[in-house]
Amino acid sequence: MEEISVNEALEKSYKFSDYNAVVTINEDAEKEKDKKPILIKDIIYTKGIKTTMGSKVFFNYIPREDARVITLLKRNGYTIVGKTNTHEFASGVTNTSSVFGPSRNPINKELITGGSSGGSAAAVKLKITDVALGTDTAGSIRIPASLCGVIGFRPTHGLISVKGVFPLAPTFDDVGIMSNNVEKLKEVFYILSEKKIKKYDINNLKKVKFALPEGFYSANESIENKFKDFISNLEYEIIDINNLKSAINAFVTIRYSEASWIHEKMRDKFDQYFPDVRRLIEKGFNYYAFEYLNSLKTAKIVRRRLLMILKKYDFIILPTTPIIAPKIEDVIGKEDGEIRSILTSNTWLSSLVGFPSISLPLLNINGYPAGVQLIGKPYEDDKLLEVSKLLQK
Amino acid sequence: MEEISVNEALEKSYKFSDYNAVVTINEDAEKEKDKKPILIKDIIYTKGIKTTMGSKVFFNYIPREDARVITLLKRNGYTIVGKTNTHEFASGVTNTSSVFGPSRNPINKELITGGSSGGSAAAVKLKITDVALGTDTAGSIRIPASLCGVIGFRPTHGLISVKGVFPLAPTFDDVGIMSNNVEKLKEVFYILSEKKIKKYDINNLKKVKFALPEGFYSANESIENKFKDFISNLEYEIIDINNLKSAINAFVTIRYSEASWIHEKMRDKFDQYFPDVRRLIEKGFNYYAFEYLNSLKTAKIVRRRLLMILKKYDFIILPTTPIIAPKIEDVIGKEDGEIRSILTSNTWLSSLVGFPSISLPLLNINGYPAGVQLIGKPYEDDKLLEVSKLLQK
Repeated sequence: MEEISVNEALEKSYKFSDYNAVVTINEDAEKEKDKKPILIKDIIYTKGIKTTMGSKVFFNYIPREDARVITLLKRNGYTIVGKTNTHEFASGVTNTSSVFGPSRNPINKELITGGSSGGSAAAVKLKITDVALGTDTAGSIRIPASLCGVIGFRPTHGLISVKGVFPLAPTFDDVGIMSNNVEKLKEVFYILSEKKIKKYDINNLKKVKFALPEGFYSANESIENKFKDFISNLEYEIIDINNLKSAINAFVTIRYSEASWIHEKMRDKFDQYFPDVRRLIEKGFNYYAFEYLNSLKTAKIVRRRLLMILKKYDFIILPTTPIIAPKIEDVIGKEDGEIRSILTSNTWLSSLVGFPSISLPLLNINGYPAGVQLIGKPYEDDKLLEVSKLLQK
Repeated sequence: MEEISVNEALEKSYKFSDYNAVVTINEDAEKEKDKKPILIKDIIYTKGIKTTMGSKVFFNYIPREDARVITLLKRNGYTIVGKTNTHEFASGVTNTSSVFGPSRNPINKELITGGSSGGSAAAVKLKITDVALGTDTAGSIRIPASLCGVIGFRPTHGLISVKGVFPLAPTFDDVGIMSNNVEKLKEVFYILSEKKIKKYDINNLKKVKFALPEGFYSANESIENKFKDFISNLEYEIIDINNLKSAINAFVTIRYSEASWIHEKMRDKFDQYFPDVRRLIEKGFNYYAFEYLNSLKTAKIVRRRLLMILKKYDFIILPTTPIIAPKIEDVIGKEDGEIRSILTSNTWLSSLVGFPSISLPLLNINGYPAGVQLIGKPYEDDKLLEVSKLLQK
């Protein structure tokens, strides 16, 4: 497999600076030019390298310790060539509210990358590095993967340590991986995974059974048509999980409550936050404890329900996003409005239950990419990645 | 060791009916007269035997399944001779708000037993059975043990299953054991414990180091004097944990939030609850999710702090209750007022952190009993019980 070198990665980081994908370049990487270059979302702590969370508040923050995932990468031959743009505090799915400005979609600079791991998605699409790390709470890896046309993988909840990652909503936060190539993504996944998990050897897609949750997911007409075309070659059955739609309230309650809890100690700095991020965090202060506890209970029930369904199927399959990337100018100022609900409408479910999920760039909507999402059983991450390889062929 | 028989237990249950300790007698126990009799707090589900939670709402409720602890007891030669009085839904420490009326203190019928496991404490004091089960969230085993003059043991959180126990605040709920005799209590403890724990062989109190949290606990003058007399024979050092006093807010937030969450589905029946119980539950709806999450964090910090302290000492020692049992007529109608804070002031700490604790009837205040409380390290329950034996000699 051909691989991008550290020098190439550094060069391209400069060359593609107008995409706002890589926001801090680590020039020290040059000294380790035989290692494998990787890019890291700017919410993951990197010792000695500025880590801003996309926020004015942390604009000069340089961590004294590496996050657990960084330690593991360094130990395994990787060097950090830079940090990638994030929606402030990972609290947004458009990647337009960042102290560095919006990241720009490699397909068309006028479009959003999606977020909050938009910088990593764009960088991988631009082939600055083969692999980049992101984080995903409500869809922050899968959404930009879909809008930029790369692979975005969110593993089983808890498989990869979030130690040294600025939290958004700990019940749902996960580190994940973005790439153009499943093999390269897998290599990094096995370095980061804290548990040994079962390996699979799958050579025939005909034996893989997909469940299609018709009526549950959202998709505009063009995405729906291309998605249906795509799955027509697969072994699938339609399932009815429409009654799980209301569980989005549980997801939202937990996510907002926890984010507000995390940010509470920084109340005196809220005036420096982007208005959309501040509005989301202030909204979260209004949830009651009993509602939060009810929501955790709902999450457990949904989890059990999906486990039952996945006894009969290998994966749930659905579009990652209901739309292709909108224009930056159309979302600025209303990042926490309708666009937020639209972009997360197909991704919150696997976040709520913590099952592994992946977005694969398999749909071409008149030249614009959109992702197909698979959701697998907990700890069957390897199977998910193996089948992803077959689907990409 | 002499043991009370099933027939004796049944006879005494009738004989002492005016104490309101045993509220439902299981006459079927007669058919198992060679087994060991035991009494069960009326919030633990017993198949085929009325389980009221002390509430009008469940006055005719007969569970179809045994709680996990009941299954274990039956499997090990015990028979349930009856159910003991509880403060409604275990939500009170006076045992005066019960659909069966207040339980009465064997020392003096005018006095409260304390609660919410007051029926079990009184029954054991009256020697109706050797052992009775209770539950403890904020002190519901240790408080009545102190006021009635029996032993009350709350094990390490989670060691005994709460499956089939009506929840009060799951983060703190534990099943525990009351008796006049540590050996008999221990026998039941090992039947109920879900984990194998380390055994200790301690013969010399001189080697046991106690930590005395002076300034942290509350005690009126007579209790303070008798307590100081008692510990003067022990190897102890004074420790300063006064800055943990404010953690009571975290305890209260978690306990009230969770109780409200549990009871929320019964909102239409609140008018049938005792006024004090209803007030506590309605209060809990007002806590915010971020406050609840902050409180869980505080609990973790306090836990770490106490683990540090217990590296140097075997046990923390303090009075169980700051007062002896007050009169029933003095607390009725204000169960959720000052008396609640007073009675729980020395018991909430071990509940917050889930460490094992025990109340031993070692103080005699002009003929009225009061307890000495030990708090041990997690999973050192056996050591706590071994030392309790030595202290009782």
